[in-house]
Amino acid sequence: MLVAGRTALVLVDVQKGFLEREASGERRNNAGAVANMVRLLEAFRARGMTVIHIRHASTNPGSVLRPERPGFASMDHTREIGDEPVLIKSVNSGFIGTDLEERLRSAGIATVILVGATTNHCVETTARMAGNLGYDTRLVEDACYTFDRIGHGGRRESAEDIHAMTLSNLDGEFATIETTDSLLAAFENSAAA
Amino acid sequence: MLVAGRTALVLVDVQKGFLEREASGERRNNAGAVANMVRLLEAFRARGMTVIHIRHASTNPGSVLRPERPGFASMDHTREIGDEPVLIKSVNSGFIGTDLEERLRSAGIATVILVGATTNHCVETTARMAGNLGYDTRLVEDACYTFDRIGHGGRRESAEDIHAMTLSNLDGEFATIETTDSLLAAFENSAAA
Repeated sequence: MLVAGRTALVLVDVQKGFLEREASGERRNNAGAVANMVRLLEAFRARGMTVIHIRHASTNPGSVLRPERPGFASMDHTREIGDEPVLIKSVNSGFIGTDLEERLRSAGIATVILVGATTNHCVETTARMAGNLGYDTRLVEDACYTFDRIGHGGRRESAEDIHAMTLSNLDGEFATIETTDSLLAAFENSAAA
Repeated sequence: MLVAGRTALVLVDVQKGFLEREASGERRNNAGAVANMVRLLEAFRARGMTVIHIRHASTNPGSVLRPERPGFASMDHTREIGDEPVLIKSVNSGFIGTDLEERLRSAGIATVILVGATTNHCVETTARMAGNLGYDTRLVEDACYTFDRIGHGGRRESAEDIHAMTLSNLDGEFATIETTDSLLAAFENSAAA
Protein backbone atom coordinates (compact mmCIF):
# COMPACT_ATOMS: atom_id res chain seq x y z
CA MET A 1 0.00 0.00 0.00
CA LEU A 2 1.17 3.53 -0.71
CA VAL A 3 0.12 6.40 1.50
CA ALA A 4 -0.20 9.53 -0.63
CA GLY A 5 1.12 12.03 1.90
CA ARG A 6 4.03 9.85 2.92
CA THR A 7 5.35 8.61 -0.43
CA ALA A 8 7.80 10.39 -2.73
CA LEU A 9 8.85 9.61 -6.28
CA VAL A 10 12.56 10.39 -6.70
CA LEU A 11 13.95 10.59 -10.23
CA VAL A 12 17.70 10.07 -10.28
CA ASP A 13 19.77 11.58 -13.10
CA VAL A 14 17.17 11.38 -15.86
CA GLN A 15 19.33 13.61 -18.04
CA LYS A 16 20.04 14.04 -21.73
CA GLY A 17 23.65 12.99 -21.31
CA PHE A 18 22.45 9.40 -21.18
CA LEU A 19 20.66 9.88 -24.51
CA GLU A 20 23.99 11.13 -25.91
CA ARG A 21 25.68 7.96 -24.73
CA GLU A 22 23.06 5.90 -26.55
CA ALA A 23 23.34 8.07 -29.66
CA SER A 24 27.08 7.48 -29.65
CA GLY A 25 26.49 3.73 -29.82
CA GLU A 26 26.46 2.57 -26.21
CA ARG A 27 24.03 -0.27 -25.60
CA ARG A 28 21.56 -0.15 -22.67
CA ASN A 29 18.79 -2.32 -21.24
CA ASN A 30 15.11 -1.60 -20.51
CA ALA A 31 14.08 0.26 -23.66
CA GLY A 32 10.80 1.25 -21.97
CA ALA A 33 12.32 2.71 -18.81
CA VAL A 34 11.71 6.40 -19.57
CA ALA A 35 8.14 5.69 -20.66
CA ASN A 36 7.61 3.93 -17.33
CA MET A 37 9.04 6.89 -15.44
CA VAL A 38 6.52 9.09 -17.24
CA ARG A 39 3.65 6.76 -16.23
CA LEU A 40 4.74 7.03 -12.60
CA LEU A 41 5.23 10.79 -12.82
CA GLU A 42 1.71 11.19 -14.20
CA ALA A 43 0.26 9.03 -11.41
CA PHE A 44 2.08 11.02 -8.73
CA ARG A 45 1.15 14.36 -10.24
CA ALA A 46 -2.49 13.36 -10.70
CA ARG A 47 -2.67 12.73 -6.94
CA GLY A 48 -0.68 15.80 -5.91
CA MET A 49 2.01 13.55 -4.42
CA THR A 50 5.64 14.48 -3.80
CA VAL A 51 8.01 14.34 -6.78
CA ILE A 52 11.72 15.14 -6.39
CA HIS A 53 14.20 15.40 -9.24
CA ILE A 54 17.89 14.77 -8.66
CA ARG A 55 20.36 15.88 -11.26
CA HIS A 56 24.03 15.02 -11.54
CA ALA A 57 26.52 17.86 -12.08
CA SER A 58 29.71 15.98 -12.87
CA THR A 59 33.10 17.34 -11.95
CA ASN A 60 34.76 14.86 -14.34
CA PRO A 61 36.26 16.75 -17.31
CA GLY A 62 35.08 14.14 -19.82
CA SER A 63 31.54 13.67 -18.54
CA VAL A 64 28.43 14.35 -20.62
CA LEU A 65 26.80 15.40 -17.32
CA ARG A 66 28.97 18.44 -16.66
CA PRO A 67 26.64 21.32 -15.71
CA GLU A 68 27.72 23.54 -18.61
CA ARG A 69 27.02 20.87 -21.24
CA PRO A 70 23.73 20.12 -22.99
CA GLY A 71 23.72 16.62 -21.48
CA PHE A 72 23.10 18.11 -18.04
CA ALA A 73 19.51 19.00 -18.96
CA SER A 74 16.58 16.87 -17.89
CA MET A 75 15.15 14.57 -20.51
CA ASP A 76 12.16 16.34 -22.09
CA HIS A 77 9.40 14.02 -20.90
CA THR A 78 10.50 13.93 -17.26
CA ARG A 79 11.28 17.62 -16.74
CA GLU A 80 10.08 19.20 -13.52
CA ILE A 81 6.83 21.18 -13.48
CA GLY A 82 5.36 23.62 -10.98
CA ASP A 83 7.23 23.62 -7.70
CA GLU A 84 8.80 20.17 -7.99
CA PRO A 85 12.28 20.53 -6.48
CA VAL A 86 15.45 19.81 -8.43
CA LEU A 87 18.39 18.81 -6.23
CA ILE A 88 21.87 19.00 -7.70
CA LYS A 89 24.56 16.55 -6.62
CA SER A 90 28.09 15.88 -7.81
CA VAL A 91 28.56 12.36 -6.45
CA ASN A 92 26.50 9.21 -6.92
CA SER A 93 24.35 9.32 -3.82
CA GLY A 94 21.39 11.66 -3.92
CA PHE A 95 21.84 12.10 -0.15
CA ILE A 96 25.39 13.47 -0.19
CA GLY A 97 25.82 17.18 -0.78
CA THR A 98 22.05 17.79 -1.00
CA ASP A 99 19.22 18.42 1.45
CA LEU A 100 17.33 15.31 0.32
CA GLU A 101 17.24 13.73 3.77
CA GLU A 102 16.02 16.89 5.56
CA ARG A 103 13.49 17.44 2.79
CA LEU A 104 12.06 13.92 3.08
CA ARG A 105 11.93 14.08 6.87
CA SER A 106 10.31 17.49 7.04
CA ALA A 107 7.69 16.39 4.48
CA GLY A 108 6.94 13.29 6.56
CA ILE A 109 7.92 10.92 3.76
CA ALA A 110 8.30 7.28 4.78
CA THR A 111 8.34 5.57 1.38
CA VAL A 112 10.84 6.49 -1.34
CA ILE A 113 10.21 5.26 -4.88
CA LEU A 114 13.40 5.35 -6.96
CA VAL A 115 13.69 5.42 -10.74
CA GLY A 116 16.41 6.67 -13.07
CA ALA A 117 19.89 6.01 -14.37
CA THR A 118 22.15 4.30 -14.09
CA THR A 119 20.76 1.39 -12.12
CA ASN A 120 24.10 0.28 -10.67
CA HIS A 121 25.72 3.62 -9.95
CA CYS A 122 23.57 6.56 -8.87
CA VAL A 123 20.26 4.73 -8.44
CA GLU A 124 21.81 1.86 -6.47
CA THR A 125 23.90 4.15 -4.26
CA THR A 126 20.88 6.33 -3.48
CA ALA A 127 18.81 3.20 -2.77
CA ARG A 128 21.45 1.76 -0.42
CA MET A 129 21.54 5.00 1.54
CA ALA A 130 17.76 5.42 1.57
CA GLY A 131 17.35 1.90 2.95
CA ASN A 132 20.10 2.38 5.53
CA LEU A 133 18.60 5.73 6.59
CA GLY A 134 15.38 3.92 7.44
CA TYR A 135 13.13 4.67 4.49
CA ASP A 136 10.77 2.09 3.05
CA THR A 137 12.67 2.10 -0.24
CA ARG A 138 11.27 0.76 -3.51
CA LEU A 139 13.30 0.39 -6.67
CA VAL A 140 11.22 0.21 -9.84
CA GLU A 141 13.12 -2.30 -11.91
CA ASP A 142 11.57 -1.45 -15.29
CA ALA A 143 12.01 2.31 -14.74
CA CYS A 144 15.80 2.16 -14.39
CA TYR A 145 18.52 1.23 -16.83
CA THR A 146 22.23 0.92 -17.34
CA PHE A 147 24.79 0.31 -20.06
CA ASP A 148 27.05 -2.51 -21.24
CA ARG A 149 30.61 -2.09 -20.05
CA ILE A 150 34.03 -3.64 -19.76
CA GLY A 151 34.31 -4.16 -16.01
CA HIS A 152 37.16 -4.65 -13.59
CA GLY A 153 39.84 -6.95 -14.94
CA GLY A 154 38.49 -6.72 -18.49
CA ARG A 155 35.25 -8.60 -17.76
CA ARG A 156 32.65 -7.97 -20.45
CA GLU A 157 29.38 -7.22 -18.64
CA SER A 158 25.98 -6.75 -20.26
CA ALA A 159 23.60 -4.06 -19.11
CA GLU A 160 21.13 -6.84 -18.25
CA ASP A 161 23.59 -8.67 -15.98
CA ILE A 162 24.74 -5.47 -14.26
CA HIS A 163 21.12 -4.41 -13.73
CA ALA A 164 20.12 -7.85 -12.43
CA MET A 165 22.95 -7.90 -9.89
CA THR A 166 21.83 -4.54 -8.53
CA LEU A 167 18.33 -5.91 -8.04
CA SER A 168 19.70 -8.96 -6.20
CA ASN A 169 22.00 -6.84 -4.02
CA LEU A 170 19.20 -4.46 -3.02
CA ASP A 171 16.30 -6.92 -2.73
CA GLY A 172 15.22 -7.39 0.86
CA GLU A 173 18.41 -5.81 2.21
CA PHE A 174 18.00 -2.18 1.17
CA ALA A 175 14.82 -2.04 -0.89
CA THR A 176 11.77 -3.78 -2.23
CA ILE A 177 11.94 -4.40 -5.97
CA GLU A 178 8.80 -3.19 -7.72
CA THR A 179 7.62 -2.85 -11.30
CA THR A 180 5.76 0.11 -12.74
CA ASP A 181 2.64 -2.05 -12.91
CA SER A 182 2.96 -3.25 -9.30
CA LEU A 183 3.24 0.35 -8.12
CA LEU A 184 0.35 1.59 -10.21
CA ALA A 185 -1.75 -1.27 -8.85
CA ALA A 186 -0.76 -0.24 -5.29
CA PHE A 187 -2.12 3.22 -6.08
CA GLU A 188 -5.45 1.74 -7.06
CA ASN A 189 -5.58 -0.11 -3.75
CA SER A 190 -4.57 2.82 -1.56
CA ALA A 191 -6.82 5.46 -0.16
CA ALA A 192 -5.51 8.96 -0.73
CA ALA A 193 -4.28 10.45 2.55
CA MET B 1 51.77 5.61 -2.27
CA LEU B 2 50.36 5.38 1.23
CA VAL B 3 51.02 8.13 3.77
CA ALA B 4 51.23 6.54 7.23
CA GLY B 5 49.51 9.31 9.18
CA ARG B 6 46.73 9.74 6.66
CA THR B 7 45.75 6.13 5.91
CA ALA B 8 43.33 3.94 7.86
CA LEU B 9 42.61 0.23 7.60
CA VAL B 10 38.89 -0.36 8.17
CA LEU B 11 37.73 -3.92 8.84
CA VAL B 12 34.05 -4.36 8.07
CA ASP B 13 32.06 -7.07 9.87
CA VAL B 14 34.85 -9.62 10.32
CA GLN B 15 32.66 -11.58 12.72
CA LYS B 16 32.19 -15.20 13.68
CA GLY B 17 28.65 -15.26 12.34
CA PHE B 18 30.12 -15.58 8.86
CA LEU B 19 32.09 -18.64 10.00
CA GLU B 20 28.79 -20.09 11.21
CA ARG B 21 27.28 -19.56 7.79
CA GLU B 22 30.19 -21.48 6.26
CA ALA B 23 29.94 -24.21 8.86
CA SER B 24 26.27 -24.60 8.01
CA GLY B 25 27.19 -25.33 4.40
CA GLU B 26 27.07 -21.94 2.67
CA ARG B 27 29.69 -21.59 -0.04
CA ARG B 28 31.93 -18.49 -0.23
CA ASN B 29 34.75 -17.18 -2.41
CA ASN B 30 38.29 -16.04 -1.56
CA ALA B 31 39.40 -18.77 0.87
CA GLY B 32 42.46 -16.68 1.78
CA ALA B 33 40.61 -13.47 2.60
CA VAL B 34 40.96 -13.57 6.39
CA ALA B 35 44.66 -14.48 6.14
CA ASN B 36 45.08 -11.44 3.89
CA MET B 37 43.28 -9.23 6.40
CA VAL B 38 45.72 -10.44 9.03
CA ARG B 39 48.70 -9.59 6.79
CA LEU B 40 47.35 -6.07 6.37
CA LEU B 41 46.56 -5.72 10.08
CA GLU B 42 50.13 -6.71 10.94
CA ALA B 43 51.56 -4.21 8.48
CA PHE B 44 49.40 -1.39 9.87
CA ARG B 45 50.14 -2.28 13.47
CA ALA B 46 53.88 -2.59 12.82
CA ARG B 47 53.84 1.02 11.58
CA GLY B 48 51.54 2.35 14.29
CA MET B 49 48.94 3.25 11.65
CA THR B 50 45.21 3.71 12.20
CA VAL B 51 43.09 0.57 12.39
CA ILE B 52 39.30 0.76 12.85
CA HIS B 53 37.01 -2.21 13.40
CA ILE B 54 33.36 -2.04 12.41
CA ARG B 55 30.99 -4.63 13.75
CA HIS B 56 27.43 -5.35 12.70
CA ALA B 57 24.76 -5.64 15.39
CA SER B 58 21.81 -6.97 13.46
CA THR B 59 18.24 -6.12 14.40
CA ASN B 60 16.97 -9.00 12.25
CA PRO B 61 15.51 -11.75 14.48
CA GLY B 62 17.08 -14.54 12.43
CA SER B 63 20.55 -13.07 11.99
CA VAL B 64 23.74 -14.74 13.22
CA LEU B 65 25.04 -11.20 13.83
CA ARG B 66 22.58 -10.25 16.56
CA PRO B 67 24.58 -8.67 19.39
CA GLU B 68 23.52 -11.26 21.98
CA ARG B 69 24.62 -14.22 19.83
CA PRO B 70 28.10 -15.78 19.61
CA GLY B 71 28.30 -14.85 15.92
CA PHE B 72 28.54 -11.17 16.86
CA ALA B 73 32.10 -11.66 18.14
CA SER B 74 35.12 -10.70 16.10
CA MET B 75 36.93 -13.51 14.35
CA ASP B 76 39.85 -14.53 16.56
CA HIS B 77 42.72 -13.50 14.28
CA THR B 78 41.37 -10.04 13.51
CA ARG B 79 40.25 -9.01 16.99
CA GLU B 80 41.09 -5.48 18.12
CA ILE B 81 44.14 -4.88 20.29
CA GLY B 82 45.22 -1.91 22.40
CA ASP B 83 43.14 1.17 21.73
CA GLU B 84 41.88 0.21 18.27
CA PRO B 85 38.29 1.48 18.12
CA VAL B 86 35.33 -0.81 17.51
CA LEU B 87 32.34 0.94 15.96
CA ILE B 88 28.97 -0.76 16.13
CA LYS B 89 26.42 -0.30 13.36
CA SER B 90 23.06 -1.86 12.65
CA VAL B 91 22.78 -1.12 8.92
CA ASN B 92 25.13 -1.91 6.05
CA SER B 93 27.04 1.34 5.80
CA GLY B 94 29.79 1.85 8.34
CA PHE B 95 29.06 5.58 8.11
CA ILE B 96 25.42 5.47 9.22
CA GLY B 97 24.72 5.46 12.94
CA THR B 98 28.43 5.62 13.84
CA ASP B 99 31.02 8.37 14.25
CA LEU B 100 33.24 6.93 11.52
CA GLU B 101 33.21 10.07 9.41
CA GLU B 102 34.04 12.44 12.31
CA ARG B 103 36.69 10.02 13.48
CA LEU B 104 38.39 9.86 10.07
CA ARG B 105 38.24 13.63 9.61
CA SER B 106 39.55 14.46 13.05
CA ALA B 107 42.41 12.00 12.58
CA GLY B 108 43.29 13.61 9.24
CA ILE B 109 42.71 10.40 7.31
CA ALA B 110 42.59 10.81 3.53
CA THR B 111 42.91 7.18 2.40
CA VAL B 112 40.54 4.45 3.58
CA ILE B 113 41.52 0.82 2.99
CA LEU B 114 38.50 -1.48 3.18
CA VAL B 115 38.46 -5.22 3.86
CA GLY B 116 35.81 -7.53 5.28
CA ALA B 117 32.50 -9.21 4.59
CA THR B 118 30.36 -9.39 2.70
CA THR B 119 31.85 -7.79 -0.39
CA ASN B 120 28.53 -6.81 -1.95
CA HIS B 121 26.58 -5.71 1.10
CA CYS B 122 28.41 -4.01 3.96
CA VAL B 123 31.82 -3.60 2.33
CA GLU B 124 30.38 -2.24 -0.91
CA THR B 125 27.95 0.12 0.82
CA THR B 126 30.71 1.48 3.04
CA ALA B 127 32.98 1.85 -0.01
CA ARG B 128 30.33 3.72 -1.98
CA MET B 129 29.82 6.16 0.88
CA ALA B 130 33.55 6.56 1.56
CA GLY B 131 34.14 7.40 -2.09
CA ASN B 132 31.20 9.79 -2.25
CA LEU B 133 32.33 11.50 0.97
CA GLY B 134 35.62 12.29 -0.71
CA TYR B 135 38.00 9.70 0.67
CA ASP B 136 40.67 8.07 -1.46
CA THR B 137 39.01 4.67 -1.05
CA ARG B 138 40.74 1.37 -1.73
CA LEU B 139 38.98 -1.98 -1.73
CA VAL B 140 41.28 -4.95 -1.24
CA GLU B 141 39.75 -7.54 -3.52
CA ASP B 142 41.45 -10.60 -2.01
CA ALA B 143 40.67 -9.51 1.56
CA CYS B 144 36.88 -9.50 1.08
CA TYR B 145 34.43 -12.26 0.38
CA THR B 146 30.80 -13.12 -0.10
CA PHE B 147 28.49 -16.12 -0.44
CA ASP B 148 26.58 -17.90 -3.17
CA ARG B 149 22.90 -16.97 -3.21
CA ILE B 150 19.62 -17.21 -5.03
CA GLY B 151 19.13 -13.63 -6.17
CA HIS B 152 16.16 -11.55 -7.23
CA GLY B 153 13.77 -13.45 -9.46
CA GLY B 154 15.35 -16.80 -8.56
CA ARG B 155 18.67 -16.11 -10.32
CA ARG B 156 21.40 -18.45 -9.08
CA GLU B 157 24.46 -16.27 -8.41
CA SER B 158 27.91 -17.51 -7.44
CA ALA B 159 29.98 -15.75 -4.82
CA GLU B 160 32.60 -15.17 -7.51
CA ASP B 161 30.15 -13.43 -9.86
CA ILE B 162 28.62 -11.32 -7.08
CA HIS B 163 32.09 -10.33 -5.87
CA ALA B 164 33.29 -9.50 -9.38
CA MET B 165 30.30 -7.25 -10.05
CA THR B 166 31.03 -5.29 -6.88
CA LEU B 167 34.59 -4.73 -8.06
CA SER B 168 33.34 -3.52 -11.45
CA ASN B 169 30.74 -1.22 -9.90
CA LEU B 170 33.26 0.37 -7.53
CA ASP B 171 36.32 0.51 -9.78
CA GLY B 172 37.18 4.07 -10.75
CA GLU B 173 33.78 5.37 -9.65
CA PHE B 174 33.96 4.96 -5.87
CA ALA B 175 37.25 3.22 -5.17
CA THR B 176 40.54 1.87 -6.44
CA ILE B 177 40.68 -1.92 -6.46
CA GLU B 178 43.82 -3.20 -4.76
CA THR B 179 45.21 -6.56 -3.76
CA THR B 180 46.92 -7.36 -0.49
CA ASP B 181 50.22 -7.60 -2.36
CA SER B 182 49.74 -4.28 -4.15
CA LEU B 183 49.07 -2.57 -0.82
CA LEU B 184 52.00 -4.18 0.95
CA ALA B 185 54.22 -3.13 -1.96
CA ALA B 186 52.90 0.44 -1.61
CA PHE B 187 54.02 0.34 2.03
CA GLU B 188 57.51 -0.59 0.97
CA ASN B 189 57.58 2.39 -1.40
CA SER B 190 56.19 4.93 1.07
CA ALA B 191 58.12 6.96 3.54
CA ALA B 192 56.62 6.88 7.01
CA ALA B 193 55.04 10.21 7.84
